[in-house]
Amino acid sequence: MTEDVLVHPGKLHYFVREIIKRLRVPPKDASKIADVLVAADLAAMESQGAARLPFYADRLSAGLVNPAPSLEVVEEKGAVLTLDGDNGPGPVVGVRAMELAIGKAAKNGIAAVAVRHSNQPGMLGYYARLALSQQMIGVAMTNDRPTIVPPGGTRPVHGVNPVAIAVPTKEGQSPFVLDFTTSSVDFKGYGLGLVVDILSGVLPSGAFGDELSGAEGDHPTVARIGHFFAALRIESFGPFGHFRDRFDLMLKKVSFSGARGAERVRYPGETEYEAEVERRANGIPLSPSVCQELEGLARRFDVRDAWEQVLASRKSV
Amino acid sequence: MTEDVLVHPGKLHYFVREIIKRLRVPPKDASKIADVLVAADLAAMESQGAARLPFYADRLSAGLVNPAPSLEVVEEKGAVLTLDGDNGPGPVVGVRAMELAIGKAAKNGIAAVAVRHSNQPGMLGYYARLALSQQMIGVAMTNDRPTIVPPGGTRPVHGVNPVAIAVPTKEGQSPFVLDFTTSSVDFKGYGLGLVVDILSGVLPSGAFGDELSGAEGDHPTVARIGHFFAALRIESFGPFGHFRDRFDLMLKKVSFSGARGAERVRYPGETEYEAEVERRANGIPLSPSVCQELEGLARRFDVRDAWEQVLASRKSV
Repeated sequence: MTEDVLVHPGKLHYFVREIIKRLRVPPKDASKIADVLVAADLAAMESQGAARLPFYADRLSAGLVNPAPSLEVVEEKGAVLTLDGDNGPGPVVGVRAMELAIGKAAKNGIAAVAVRHSNQPGMLGYYARLALSQQMIGVAMTNDRPTIVPPGGTRPVHGVNPVAIAVPTKEGQSPFVLDFTTSSVDFKGYGLGLVVDILSGVLPSGAFGDELSGAEGDHPTVARIGHFFAALRIESFGPFGHFRDRFDLMLKKVSFSGARGAERVRYPGETEYEAEVERRANGIPLSPSVCQELEGLARRFDVRDAWEQVLASRKSV
Repeated sequence: MTEDVLVHPGKLHYFVREIIKRLRVPPKDASKIADVLVAADLAAMESQGAARLPFYADRLSAGLVNPAPSLEVVEEKGAVLTLDGDNGPGPVVGVRAMELAIGKAAKNGIAAVAVRHSNQPGMLGYYARLALSQQMIGVAMTNDRPTIVPPGGTRPVHGVNPVAIAVPTKEGQSPFVLDFTTSSVDFKGYGLGLVVDILSGVLPSGAFGDELSGAEGDHPTVARIGHFFAALRIESFGPFGHFRDRFDLMLKKVSFSGARGAERVRYPGETEYEAEVERRANGIPLSPSVCQELEGLARRFDVRDAWEQVLASRKSV
């Protein structure tokens, strides 16, 4: 193949799940990993999508990630808890942690879950969005191996440390999902990356900074990544219907803040939502190099049928 | 006076308090306003310090700010509540809201207070820092009249919308205080300002965006500003002593991330802390124009004694 192909999201999901299952991940957990990866492809965040499957497969097969973790609540008080991920796959640990935060927020109005001993969670917006159907605001962040040098420094002290915040909108509309790496904000915002590492690393008594090295590279080691999830129940602050209508007005003001006759201004999450609508209809584009890598995995783990189904669903771009 | 003078922080505090008292603010509340303004001067954030006193005085004397508000909890559930500021002075409303968040976090591990119908709170880091003595992480944010145009837009849709996050450090050390305007982060961080307006404006059923106009200008109106405060009790996530030691290690790694022999790298809050130590010893510098404005207030509100005491404490720079 020398050009992108468009493949069916469901077939791609099935293929990812089958590969992950071969790596001794229980079927339900393999589905969660596939959910997160395919959601990234649908949102046009390809670098977090199926293109990451070889990375997951390599780390699972090298024994660097625990395929069947026993997640343990190590501290719990009121509306917060600390979860030990037992070195499980990031999406498995992350989804459980966000579900716990949502459950606690239903009772307390707000809740937070700090997570240690986990792995790369993939697209963070996925976790923040889990709160939306419960009429909650979702917050997700994770630390990562250090690549960011502070102003005036010469050595990296923290990772790109992304943050995602999702806010429910009216039905049928794009959700508001702000998903950004703290490393992309400028000097005045410097320090947000440290905050993420404090909440995701120090708070759950986990690893931070250069203790997180070794996630990639020649001598990969256990990642020791941590996360922080929070949920806010809107109805606890006031009537949800009022919030939804007022928030809708805010987003309309953003949308129409452009020049007369100019294009609508997009709010955070809209571009990804439009990509999802389009890709659900027309398929997910896979580049030739990603196809080659996935085909290699299909052979290596003997899931050729599932890969054939992906290929059978394709259209050329 | 044609050059800066250095004045005693305590004398300046007393003067600010006396001026505010003349504007029918109860003495205890006047002290809170003076606390916030002088703290900004100590932290070398002069634009939020005594230089703002004429602004507070003008708005109070014009009846645009309620000098003796009845703060009302309009919603309360579990670990969250919504507070109506009754158009009171920002520092009075803000301190009360942060205290409520801290009290609730003591029980629940985390708590949030959304505030509507308030006014300019001044230096936000002040409120976030209130959590530190309780071994908590403090979060404070506020919306403000719209001045920020979104990428692709032509009209402002939200304000500079600052955020402050404070984290406790070892005794005798600078606290970690990240205090930044969301408008200072670049395109990839765009949307943080909207998040602040969602939490400070929409969530407490308050005003947002261009509804906040009129805080300054020719025809000033009621500000209708809102805030959002949160506190996280560290001990609820794990032993506080362990957190403090590990966080200290993180900050040391930041401090010594520079080149060998180079200056220490400062973490967020250190520069302001160093200024505070220095200014407590040597005094707060006031520019000739600020002196002139404060002297004008002293005459207008007949608090010449307090102003004479400020001047008597001065040293020329």
